[in-house]
Amino acid sequence: MTNKMQLKKDLKEKRELVNITLDRFLPRKDEYPKEVHKAIRHSLFAGGKRLRPFLCIRTFSLFNDNIEKVRNIAAAIELLHTYTLIHDDLPDIDDDEYRRGRKACHVLYGNDIALLAGDALLVSAFELLSHAPVDDALKQQMIKEMAIECGDRGLIAGQMMDILCEKKEINERTLNFIHKNKTGKLINMAIRFGCLTAGATNADIKRMNEYGTRIGLAFQIVDDILDIEGDQATVGKTIGKDAKVKKATYPSIYGVDRSREMAKKLIDEATALLSHYGEKAEILLMLTDYMLTRQF
Amino acid sequence: MTNKMQLKKDLKEKRELVNITLDRFLPRKDEYPKEVHKAIRHSLFAGGKRLRPFLCIRTFSLFNDNIEKVRNIAAAIELLHTYTLIHDDLPDIDDDEYRRGRKACHVLYGNDIALLAGDALLVSAFELLSHAPVDDALKQQMIKEMAIECGDRGLIAGQMMDILCEKKEINERTLNFIHKNKTGKLINMAIRFGCLTAGATNADIKRMNEYGTRIGLAFQIVDDILDIEGDQATVGKTIGKDAKVKKATYPSIYGVDRSREMAKKLIDEATALLSHYGEKAEILLMLTDYMLTRQF
Repeated sequence: MTNKMQLKKDLKEKRELVNITLDRFLPRKDEYPKEVHKAIRHSLFAGGKRLRPFLCIRTFSLFNDNIEKVRNIAAAIELLHTYTLIHDDLPDIDDDEYRRGRKACHVLYGNDIALLAGDALLVSAFELLSHAPVDDALKQQMIKEMAIECGDRGLIAGQMMDILCEKKEINERTLNFIHKNKTGKLINMAIRFGCLTAGATNADIKRMNEYGTRIGLAFQIVDDILDIEGDQATVGKTIGKDAKVKKATYPSIYGVDRSREMAKKLIDEATALLSHYGEKAEILLMLTDYMLTRQF
Repeated sequence: MTNKMQLKKDLKEKRELVNITLDRFLPRKDEYPKEVHKAIRHSLFAGGKRLRPFLCIRTFSLFNDNIEKVRNIAAAIELLHTYTLIHDDLPDIDDDEYRRGRKACHVLYGNDIALLAGDALLVSAFELLSHAPVDDALKQQMIKEMAIECGDRGLIAGQMMDILCEKKEINERTLNFIHKNKTGKLINMAIRFGCLTAGATNADIKRMNEYGTRIGLAFQIVDDILDIEGDQATVGKTIGKDAKVKKATYPSIYGVDRSREMAKKLIDEATALLSHYGEKAEILLMLTDYMLTRQF
C-alpha cells in the first residue's frame, strides 16, 4: 500500500470512529425541538475531514494503545470546531454561504437557528468531555484548559482580531496572533489532550506542542494559498473570498511563493520533531507531509 | 428595619460579592483585543439584579455558612445568564435594543462583537466553575449538569421553541415547555448548585427544586405582566414588545387577572416549602414575597 493509500485508510477509520461517537452522543434529528437538532447534524455531518480529532487520536496512540479512552475527547474537539464554523459563517460575521461543500447552516435553517445550534455545540463539547473515561482530576484539568483556550484570551480573541482587521493593512505580528488563536488553539488542544489522556511525559507534551504549533501554522498558510489557487468544488467552500474582502493572509503579505516556502519549512521542522517516535509516528508523518500537498 | 429594607440590603451585599468576583475573574476592558472585553463588561455590569447568584448563595446559606465556597459558582451562573441575554437581543433573534436600562450590547458594539462576547461569556462560565473550591468529583458533576441544562435539551431547546412559536397560537403545554427551559433551567440550576456545594441532603435538594420551579414560573408570569403593565424606565427593557410580536405569554393565554392569581398560588406554595427551614430562610422568604410585587 502506498503512503497516500495508508493515510487515507487510517483517516477514514478514525473519522468513522469519531462520527459514531458523535452520532451516539447527539440527540436524534427528530427529537423535539427538531429544528435545532437537524441544524446541528447538518453542520456536523457535512463531510468534515475530522483533522483535529485525528490529530488527537494519533497523538494519543504514540503513547497508549487503548483508543477507547480518547474517543470522546477527540469528538468533543470536533464539536468545538463545528461551533466556530457555524458562528463564523453567519451574516453578522463572515457571511459565507458554503461550508464543507454544502450550504452553510444559516442558509438552510435561518440565522436564529444557526446561532443557537452553534451555542448548543459549544456547550455539548463540555458535556461530551465530561463523559470521557479518565479520572476526575484530569477531566477537570482538561475542562478548565478547554474553557481558557476557547475563551476571550484564546480562540475568541483570534476571531475578534480577524473581524477587526478585515479591510485593514495588518502587520505580521497581528496576522500571527490571529492564526495562533483562531486556528492554532484547537489544533494544539487536540494534540495536548491526546498527550494528557495517554499519560505522556512533560517532555513529550512539550515536543508535541512544538509539532502542533508548526503544523497549525502550515495548515493556515496552505488554507490561504488554496483560497487563491484552489478549486471551489474540491476545497468545499467559497474561493477567492479573502481577496474580495481584502483580508490579510500569508500570501497577501508575503506572496504565494514565499508563503509556500514558509509552509515547507514548518512541515520540515514538524517532521523532524516526529522522528523521535520512530515507527509509532508513521501515520502522523504521512499526515504532516499531506498538509503541504493537500488540495482541500 | 422593615422586611423590604432588609431584603434590599442583603441583595445589595450579595450583588457586590458577585460583582467583585466577576470583576476579578474577567479580563480588564483594555486588555487586547479590547473590543470584546469592553462589550462583555458593558453587558455584565449593566446593573443586573443578580437574582440567580442571589438564589444560589441564599440557598447555600440554608445549609452552610462559608459563603466563600459558593461565590465562583454563583457568579458563573450570572455569566451564563448574561450570555443568553446578549444572544437573545441580537437582530437575528429578538432584535431588542434595550437591556437592563441601557443600550443592548450589539447596538453599541455591533452584531459580530456581541455574538462573540456572548460566546466568550458562555465558555467563561465553565472556566469560573472550574475555579470553585470544591472537590474534583463534585465540580465534575456540576460541569456536566451545567452543560446538559444549558444545551439543546435544556435552555437552548426553550429558546428555540420561543423563536419558532413567535406569531403563532400555542397551547399551555408549549408555553410551559418554553418557560421551564428558557427561564427555569438557570433558576433551578442556581438553587441546585447552592444545595450541592453546601452538602445538602437529597431531601433538601428535592424540596428546594420544588421551590425553584415555583418561583421560576412565578417570575416569568410576573415578567409577562410587567411587559403589559410596567413602566419602561423602571423595568429597564422595551415594554409592550410581546404583544407587538404577538408572542404567546401567560397573560395572552389566561388574561392578566388569572395570570396574577396563578403567580400568587405559586408564591404561596414556594413560601410553604421554605417554612421547613425556619429563621434560616428569612431572607429567601422576603425575596419570594417580593417576586410577586416587584415592579422591575
